[in-house]
Amino acid sequence: MSIDERGAVCVLGTGLIGGSLLRAAAAAGYVAFGYNRSESGVSAARRDGFDVSDDLSAVLIRAAGVDALLVIAVPMPAVDYLLADIATLAPGCPLTDVVSVKGPVLDAVRKHGLEARYVGGHPMTGTAESGWAATDAGLFADAVWAVGVDEGTQAEPWSRVVRLALDCGSLVVPVLAEEHDQAVARISHLPHVLAETLAAAGAAGGKLALGLAAGSFRDGTRVAGTAPDLVRAICEPNAAALGRVLDEAIETLVTARDRLRVNGDLRELVEVGYRGRTAYDDRTHWEITGITPGTGDWLGELHRAGQDGGVLRAL
Amino acid sequence: MSIDERGAVCVLGTGLIGGSLLRAAAAAGYVAFGYNRSESGVSAARRDGFDVSDDLSAVLIRAAGVDALLVIAVPMPAVDYLLADIATLAPGCPLTDVVSVKGPVLDAVRKHGLEARYVGGHPMTGTAESGWAATDAGLFADAVWAVGVDEGTQAEPWSRVVRLALDCGSLVVPVLAEEHDQAVARISHLPHVLAETLAAAGAAGGKLALGLAAGSFRDGTRVAGTAPDLVRAICEPNAAALGRVLDEAIETLVTARDRLRVNGDLRELVEVGYRGRTAYDDRTHWEITGITPGTGDWLGELHRAGQDGGVLRAL
Repeated sequence: MSIDERGAVCVLGTGLIGGSLLRAAAAAGYVAFGYNRSESGVSAARRDGFDVSDDLSAVLIRAAGVDALLVIAVPMPAVDYLLADIATLAPGCPLTDVVSVKGPVLDAVRKHGLEARYVGGHPMTGTAESGWAATDAGLFADAVWAVGVDEGTQAEPWSRVVRLALDCGSLVVPVLAEEHDQAVARISHLPHVLAETLAAAGAAGGKLALGLAAGSFRDGTRVAGTAPDLVRAICEPNAAALGRVLDEAIETLVTARDRLRVNGDLRELVEVGYRGRTAYDDRTHWEITGITPGTGDWLGELHRAGQDGGVLRAL
Repeated sequence: MSIDERGAVCVLGTGLIGGSLLRAAAAAGYVAFGYNRSESGVSAARRDGFDVSDDLSAVLIRAAGVDALLVIAVPMPAVDYLLADIATLAPGCPLTDVVSVKGPVLDAVRKHGLEARYVGGHPMTGTAESGWAATDAGLFADAVWAVGVDEGTQAEPWSRVVRLALDCGSLVVPVLAEEHDQAVARISHLPHVLAETLAAAGAAGGKLALGLAAGSFRDGTRVAGTAPDLVRAICEPNAAALGRVLDEAIETLVTARDRLRVNGDLRELVEVGYRGRTAYDDRTHWEITGITPGTGDWLGELHRAGQDGGVLRAL
């Protein structure tokens, strides 16, 4: 297959992210089909006209026959089981995933000897909802989609993964698995932990506190409305990096509290936080151009560009 | 003046909240005028057709002449100066405020001997913007507005404050000053501190982390975009209550981090947080009825109803 052609996409797991990807890929002109473990999820997708089955072996054999891009879209605890079947039935297919951590998935892929065709992925999008009913072909529009550039990545599967992300309307950030996991601990998993902490503190104030709560509480606790099992599946596989970021956040809070108690002010924290939010508002997502996959130090160049805030908007 | 009549409202300080209140009161049919310290703020309000002056003495003498409801709408550090002039020039006017803490304002009011005509207030609304340019007559629509029911509160000024809040489109939560300050430490000041902490942690991850940041970071840091001086003016006067809530939040985070490190899970925190957010989503703002200001144990009944999540929607 030429990297300029759209091919087939096989999504394994049709929950919020996987199901939305199935919709988006179909809408973009891919031959898109998928697998889901639960019969109810399969039925819901079929009712909406999508080609989804609960027979994993049949789906993987079909994917191997059409050289489909396999997309693992199950929570981390289920990844290893899927990889075992992929290694048996579709080891030649290009392979990516949309799991919220990249290091543990890469380790599992290597354990099954599938690294030559693997490129990690993580679309930075979602809602507090889950399941097929919440799926939306527009979920990836203008989102950022992290795509792996770890050593040994091959140009052909890499280009197919990037093409899919771009066709779904996303911007692509090239990133190493380990650096991805450190970054998302800060900007995805810490937000979850702080939202849960704030929701707990608000509710501990009883009906009066919740009755007075307004915009700052509403926005600060939004992601605490996500189903507990899903939050845990997102955050817990990144325990090491999240633990280090929690150490840092706790130290920040202890310093601020002690300063407030002794001097009555929050100056340092508020100024650092304001600068941080301003840096976020001012980020540019500048476009990476002029790098040809598979030539020269393409992986190193993409890695450094991603570290510096660059994104791919076209192949 | 009968409590069934709308009278005059005099807003002291025409920033985001005070200026919006001037607009909302005028739109609701009140004779509304005001004072602002800065000439630029006065000019901006006048250009929009509002009756605002930088001559505090003249404004207060005029307010005394028409028995206007005085609304203190300056940051906490400026409250004492205003009260001194009010005690001299307009001590008979009914008096309220829209400051983010109630205990320190009540103490200052008592120091100036103005408590007989004072009723504390706090509309739970705002934006990250500030100044006259950001004012909006609709800012209070469907917001919650805390109104004091501390011992000694008189029915006539209380009814005028409640009437004004209702006429601006808000729901009124009756509350004691001390309980208000404890509650807002949880649902307004802690959200600010956690948002600043999250913004700082995200920015410490550099351009890669900020480039990958999506909805959870955006919402979790929204209020960190508020001007640092304004955040400090909101939070620091409530240092004692905020310090206690920070102790609690830090303990929650330390427990969660230790559990994550030892057992690899976040179960307890995530479940408590989810229940807290669900309780917020499910709050009802049930309507308090059948209480006549000035009769029986009206202050006690209103206090207990507010503690239990009740609101006034009509007088």
